Amino acid sequence: MDNIVFNDNKLYILDQTRLPNEEIYIEIKSLEDAFDAIKQLKVRGAPAIGIFAGYSLALFHGSNLLKAKAFLDGARPTAVNLTYATSRILNAFNGGKDLIEEAVAIHKEDIDTCKKISEYGLSLLKDGDGILTHCNAGALAASKYGTGLGPILLGTERGYKFRVYCDETRPLLQGARLTSYELEKSGADVTLICDNMASLVMKKGLINAVLVGCDRVAANGDTANKIGTSGVAVLAKYYGIPFYVLGPLSTVDFDTPTGDGIIIEERDADEIKNMYFEKPTALAETKCFNPAFDVTDNSLITAIITDRGIAYPPYEKSLKELLK
Amino acid sequence: MDNIVFNDNKLYILDQTRLPNEEIYIEIKSLEDAFDAIKQLKVRGAPAIGIFAGYSLALFHGSNLLKAKAFLDGARPTAVNLTYATSRILNAFNGGKDLIEEAVAIHKEDIDTCKKISEYGLSLLKDGDGILTHCNAGALAASKYGTGLGPILLGTERGYKFRVYCDETRPLLQGARLTSYELEKSGADVTLICDNMASLVMKKGLINAVLVGCDRVAANGDTANKIGTSGVAVLAKYYGIPFYVLGPLSTVDFDTPTGDGIIIEERDADEIKNMYFEKPTALAETKCFNPAFDVTDNSLITAIITDRGIAYPPYEKSLKELLK
Repeated sequence: MDNIVFNDNKLYILDQTRLPNEEIYIEIKSLEDAFDAIKQLKVRGAPAIGIFAGYSLALFHGSNLLKAKAFLDGARPTAVNLTYATSRILNAFNGGKDLIEEAVAIHKEDIDTCKKISEYGLSLLKDGDGILTHCNAGALAASKYGTGLGPILLGTERGYKFRVYCDETRPLLQGARLTSYELEKSGADVTLICDNMASLVMKKGLINAVLVGCDRVAANGDTANKIGTSGVAVLAKYYGIPFYVLGPLSTVDFDTPTGDGIIIEERDADEIKNMYFEKPTALAETKCFNPAFDVTDNSLITAIITDRGIAYPPYEKSLKELLK
Repeated sequence: MDNIVFNDNKLYILDQTRLPNEEIYIEIKSLEDAFDAIKQLKVRGAPAIGIFAGYSLALFHGSNLLKAKAFLDGARPTAVNLTYATSRILNAFNGGKDLIEEAVAIHKEDIDTCKKISEYGLSLLKDGDGILTHCNAGALAASKYGTGLGPILLGTERGYKFRVYCDETRPLLQGARLTSYELEKSGADVTLICDNMASLVMKKGLINAVLVGCDRVAANGDTANKIGTSGVAVLAKYYGIPFYVLGPLSTVDFDTPTGDGIIIEERDADEIKNMYFEKPTALAETKCFNPAFDVTDNSLITAIITDRGIAYPPYEKSLKELLK
């Protein structure tokens, strides 16, 4: 599934806000287009944002690359891949390299990275396993196999029969709109549930492992990911189910010692009360609290699966060792 | 807030499926109307279903009360209050009593019951407390103060300033449509959240107590309530927050030893993918699992607050003692 297409020097994205009902590619023609596409979640998922930001900055930096970089970096403050990619474009610029080539390289490296994560992840699963997913960390969120969904997509290709339960993931429903869509297309056995049903499916013994992606991992393994991830992790711990975080090692921010240092983006109340619904679900005067992410404590994470290997607790040590 | 109105020998209900956007009362004119109203959740909440079933059976039993009772009992198999109320009408019939008077008595007793539950619950809260609610167990679900929301509504009347966080409660959004609506009207400080945000608000220290209602409580305290309740209970345990179940002692089914004996109603997949949404959230071929309830293990429950007093673990003993 191609979420980002760079062809004939033109940049296109599959508008993920319209899935699963419409598959529409839109052309990105300016830095403002790129900023809006990230902000409005037309392109989302930490690795995909990085790939997209690389192309966007390479193509549309105009006369002031530093300023353009700062502008683009502001579109999604929690995603470390965004600044990782734009910094690489900046370094290429400072080194006199071709920026488009650098952006293509970032994209190709991500495909390679996702493949490696998927292989490591698959090594921890068994044919027939029941797997719970939260949000979307598949090909739509990254490239090719994706991160959190990678082992499922790769395993399905190889004939594994997983039973996958997808949390719909309120408020933006990425689990319903994107994950169940991607998995359905891949031929996997998918069952969509509401977020609050995770406890019951775990209690019924239907889940052997939880797989999630990550937006930013602190040096101690504390993990920022889509809102609700920490709740799923608490449930998995309670029911004795392995909880795996999957992402490229570049998602680990070694400059952030713990999850307390991760800023959580708060989004508009309308996403909870109005978006996607026929009618508002609550009165106009009712307040909403709409954090986009939460931080899962490292003590709840069984392993962090990266492109450079699998890290087990204590993560301060194991994540650093993967850097070598 | 009057959810069930019996006036001039006519029975009306506030159609809860239309809240919060429209406040519409509909007249119930037959046993079929009554069955559909319960099945379609126009009237919902275990105590309210009981009150409503009492009036409905008294008014529309026709020539075969036993058959009419069995028919009505099938509308919501998990709610013990339904059969409790219809059994009282049956007993009144067998005893040659006036059925309407019996239905009115059930209604009046419920108001009294809710008041007592609310008083007991309020005794466990402090002014300024942050309270998390799941689903709707307010006046709309019962009568007057309700059960789970009772302490909040009664406390607010007395000038307590609670900060209430309402889980929206997917898939049918009773927390958004009903609880936040009721509390907003009561003057309480309400913040609506998605179900998967409960972990974060607890972690942030915003919650001092969780209050939920119950659809059926087993003799050992295992509690069937709206889907997602067990997940909230696991989170509360993890974060060290008291988790209170509120309901009349009649909700305790002493003939069911543990939660394993409680049948969980499964509802239509469309409630997850289509209902309330502008467009389907997933592909037509995508399966859904849609259990309406889950069972919270008694080990996760701090106290069960009834109209006859507060039960603490071990519940086998404490619940029985409340019967005396």
